[in-house]
Amino acid sequence: MSNHELSIVFFLALAAILLACRLVGYLARFVGQPQVVGEMIAGVLIGPSLLGLIAPEAQAALFPKALMPVLYVVAQVGLVLYMFLVGLDFDVELLRTRARSAVTVSWAGILTPFALGAAIAWAVHGDTALFAEGVSIGEAALFMGAAMSITAFPMLARIIYERGLSGTSMGTLALAAGSADDAAAWCILAVVLASFSGQASIAVWAIGGGVAFGLFAFFVLRPLLARAGAWIEKREAYDSVALPGALMLLAAAAWYTDMVGIYAVFGAFVLGAAMPRGEIARRIEKQVQPLTVNLLLPLFFVYSGLNTRIGLVNSLALWGLALLVLLAATLGKGGACYAAARVSGEPPREALGIGALMNARGLMELIILNIGLERGVITPTLFSIMVIMAIVTTLTALPVFNLAFGRQVVGEAALARPAAAPGPLLDD
Amino acid sequence: MSNHELSIVFFLALAAILLACRLVGYLARFVGQPQVVGEMIAGVLIGPSLLGLIAPEAQAALFPKALMPVLYVVAQVGLVLYMFLVGLDFDVELLRTRARSAVTVSWAGILTPFALGAAIAWAVHGDTALFAEGVSIGEAALFMGAAMSITAFPMLARIIYERGLSGTSMGTLALAAGSADDAAAWCILAVVLASFSGQASIAVWAIGGGVAFGLFAFFVLRPLLARAGAWIEKREAYDSVALPGALMLLAAAAWYTDMVGIYAVFGAFVLGAAMPRGEIARRIEKQVQPLTVNLLLPLFFVYSGLNTRIGLVNSLALWGLALLVLLAATLGKGGACYAAARVSGEPPREALGIGALMNARGLMELIILNIGLERGVITPTLFSIMVIMAIVTTLTALPVFNLAFGRQVVGEAALARPAAAPGPLLDD
Repeated sequence: MSNHELSIVFFLALAAILLACRLVGYLARFVGQPQVVGEMIAGVLIGPSLLGLIAPEAQAALFPKALMPVLYVVAQVGLVLYMFLVGLDFDVELLRTRARSAVTVSWAGILTPFALGAAIAWAVHGDTALFAEGVSIGEAALFMGAAMSITAFPMLARIIYERGLSGTSMGTLALAAGSADDAAAWCILAVVLASFSGQASIAVWAIGGGVAFGLFAFFVLRPLLARAGAWIEKREAYDSVALPGALMLLAAAAWYTDMVGIYAVFGAFVLGAAMPRGEIARRIEKQVQPLTVNLLLPLFFVYSGLNTRIGLVNSLALWGLALLVLLAATLGKGGACYAAARVSGEPPREALGIGALMNARGLMELIILNIGLERGVITPTLFSIMVIMAIVTTLTALPVFNLAFGRQVVGEAALARPAAAPGPLLDD
Repeated sequence: MSNHELSIVFFLALAAILLACRLVGYLARFVGQPQVVGEMIAGVLIGPSLLGLIAPEAQAALFPKALMPVLYVVAQVGLVLYMFLVGLDFDVELLRTRARSAVTVSWAGILTPFALGAAIAWAVHGDTALFAEGVSIGEAALFMGAAMSITAFPMLARIIYERGLSGTSMGTLALAAGSADDAAAWCILAVVLASFSGQASIAVWAIGGGVAFGLFAFFVLRPLLARAGAWIEKREAYDSVALPGALMLLAAAAWYTDMVGIYAVFGAFVLGAAMPRGEIARRIEKQVQPLTVNLLLPLFFVYSGLNTRIGLVNSLALWGLALLVLLAATLGKGGACYAAARVSGEPPREALGIGALMNARGLMELIILNIGLERGVITPTLFSIMVIMAIVTTLTALPVFNLAFGRQVVGEAALARPAAAPGPLLDD
């Protein structure tokens, strides 16, 4: 395929992707779901699970094989920009304010699903329909444990802010525990990925390289960026220095973390968290968010959906496993967080809200699943089962939350928080 | 190369590209040149012309062959978004206000360079070092004519606005003639491309498809979009409807015009020109411009630069040809526009300013040259000669303009024109 032919099929696929995400996204919002739910489902519908079944030629023409590497890279660019925005919104201070309860809830929200996930992996590990051959029990358990522990923190944060709950005890607890869980799950994933590298030297390289990057980002880069930020604010050099500089660092961070083997999304998130706050962060967010969320990120959902084949879940035993995974995920994460919140002194209503939000997997789950599939840890069948789990847990989060809290805004509305309001950015 | 390996080299190349564009861009601004000049030069420096000469291994590692299709497609996305922004800023009304003088200047600025370009093509057509075998004299003349007639309209507009000249007689004339030239050159290019399709049916398809698209855009789409725009403004549905809708239409327009053979940049420009004006256009511009200009568009400059091999211009005869092309381009465009402006009654100083600005080729020239190279009309040698011409004419525009007008702001500053101020967008 010549470059020109490639760009023709790319623009056609892009138009179809944006249309599908928009249509299903509207339907999702119509029934009170966040946009991210619509885009997750749109990705599956446009892939082999639906479009490929009813119109295989159209599906093959829309997404020819030669297009896949391009789709992958552009989706990675969208993902890296998005994780950078998530990092930019990440509030380390939150962890300190309700530290003790947050620790209880977040440990419960990690250890229980991790244990249940690992147990499932241990039980089904021998089945080559689920795990690729050559994957050890330990690796399978680690991966499934990490994949079960994911929280869609950006989605949780957005709902808390939108409902005006961020100043309340429950809101602070949910934000603190959610962000701690998010950070922890990514660290586990880093260990998992490093262990999959096979050779010990590669694992050391990944873990050492990742830790070195984190330390460098917070103890060298952050102070330097703070000084650069003061310089930029003084000269109002937002457009000429701050944005191009941030994008350059972002590309370098994505390259480095990708290269050492802990994936570009880490580098993007850590760099975002290390950026100076205030006017600079607010402006970059405004400049980066629209095209990222509306143009580039939908490609990632669709890339995931193209790898999802619900049809592979084709036996009673596999559907039984899917149900088991879903139950373990919901009880292990949502149930455990509810219980931990009750133990920490939250009333039942607040505890239910926390459990519902912590249970949503969202985009974050798709990221870890795609990495597992790309690395050859899990098979397309297990990938599809996990995608079903991700969609269902994300789909149920808001209705259960509304059951507890109703649909009205409780405290100050999100609009009262102009500087750091996550807006449509935090749609996951 | 696996997808993951591909994304690693992509992020590394991206970091290098952004760094080079920023560094050379700063140098350019330091000597009073626009950013676009810096990025054009950065693209050449990072390519085989400089980096490839002094460190061929580094250059090959930075831009491996497998990366080229990805780089091409992402650069096309940036280009399509940019041309959409240019269309969004295009002001049809301008053409009416100073119609007669504008017609004189713009015809002079097209016919003369077209004739000189065609004459050069006619003289050197037999040389297979310049034109690919199988390219007829007529095609070679058409392409060279169109390539000589290009004006970097966005750059011209930006300088006029920045200096507060947009309300003056000279400013209006320059803007009107420049936009007319730009539109005309693109029409010629469409004819040229259509004629290269070889078979008459393909040419008919391209011209017919292009005309049909233009008519559809202005007589069907524009009224529909105006009504949609009123609906959106009433509901303030800018983020939820206007931007995602525009991006979807943009992908579809890019695909259609790419598919019929007149390239995605046309569809993007025409769609931008057909969009509703006012608040909607202003917001979309603000949302699309930052990532387009700072992240995606630099890839296009570098893709151009990777195809430029100044080393191919390796004989006295070829350097003589480069000088001839440069002279013909400058006399044919800048000189003819100066003369036409004088004939239309402009004083010498104003006429010199118009000639200087009309002579800049900028990004627009790189677009047409890349299409010619991609289609196999011109060889890498002629491509490199034409890139030299594009850089030199762009480089000399501002100094000559400053010679006539000084460096100060004459009328109202650009800041006094907040709604439609082109800002850093119109950097070409």
